[in-house]
Amino acid sequence: MRQFIVVGHDAPTTDDFSLDDLPGAGRLDVLCRCVNSAFFLSHDLREDVSVHLVLGDEYVVRFEGSELRRLNPDERSTGALIRGALEAREEAIGAMEANPSPGVYIGKGDFAATVEAVAKEGTLVELHEDGNPVVDVEPPESPVFVLSDHHDFTDAEADLLADRADRRVSIGPHALHADHTITVAHNYLDTDGFVDY
Amino acid sequence: MRQFIVVGHDAPTTDDFSLDDLPGAGRLDVLCRCVNSAFFLSHDLREDVSVHLVLGDEYVVRFEGSELRRLNPDERSTGALIRGALEAREEAIGAMEANPSPGVYIGKGDFAATVEAVAKEGTLVELHEDGNPVVDVEPPESPVFVLSDHHDFTDAEADLLADRADRRVSIGPHALHADHTITVAHNYLDTDGFVDY
Repeated sequence: MRQFIVVGHDAPTTDDFSLDDLPGAGRLDVLCRCVNSAFFLSHDLREDVSVHLVLGDEYVVRFEGSELRRLNPDERSTGALIRGALEAREEAIGAMEANPSPGVYIGKGDFAATVEAVAKEGTLVELHEDGNPVVDVEPPESPVFVLSDHHDFTDAEADLLADRADRRVSIGPHALHADHTITVAHNYLDTDGFVDY
Repeated sequence: MRQFIVVGHDAPTTDDFSLDDLPGAGRLDVLCRCVNSAFFLSHDLREDVSVHLVLGDEYVVRFEGSELRRLNPDERSTGALIRGALEAREEAIGAMEANPSPGVYIGKGDFAATVEAVAKEGTLVELHEDGNPVVDVEPPESPVFVLSDHHDFTDAEADLLADRADRRVSIGPHALHADHTITVAHNYLDTDGFVDY
């Protein structure tokens, strides 16, 4: 299982936004592209993937690859799935998530709680320019990657990650967009550190 | 210089399409994501990149990283740049391109002519599942990658590529979307085969 947590610092926490302007909706376009990168193969979907989008430190929209039925690659349709989840946000009560669409869940939650909960299910990999080159690191079996939208992590988020991370890894000399980072991480895992395929 | 040729088999050849439905416009969303992957770094643009989008084997929209001024990461705004180029298609006469926006050109052209012309400027890398693993291949200085949209290459296109390619490379065990392939190719080149950084 591969899991990705993506923080949308400015992301909407209500369904009151237009699909015609996803960048204007707190850069929801960034999160939509992350969902695309996490799940899509050519003519196939990665079933062993979960994505947790933290929206404004208030809600978490969770995508489960094994259950997804209506995911398309374009940003707008993914934005519509997220908006549909936000429409159902009042149905999420306490620790109980709502499930407005196959494989799409929404629950209350913030960054710290999400990282703590998901990290228990695998190996938390911190992506950091000072980390070990990804090819020198044995790919973990159940990695959890944590990424930020167009903003850097806040100091509190970065501190939490540094504290909780099992490994610190660099994927290359350039800082990349979150969705591109997910693609590179998948490729690294697919190729087992580019050794065994 | 890194160059990417992307074939849009069903892509529009007129400006008569809606930005609200890029998938319905011959899967223009695929090409928009390829442009994103080719150019964007976090808070930066790759200046040493050219992208050639072959639209319906009739027009080629060329993006030049060193000149681009109005590129944003979201699909819709890139779709608007392509539509703007198509609006100017009548200004492209013979071998003369039109230049409707900084760094965006449109000219008449088809797949074969584009591959022939661009291949002369670098090393044509064929991406193929039976190719050599990318890490075993010394990254060329001026690579030219050729990718297809949501369709496979036609037999004629595949034959031309196999015939003209200088190298045949595999980027991993899974077939990926074209935009994800561009991201992996960049990472491979950025890290010089993951050896020297």
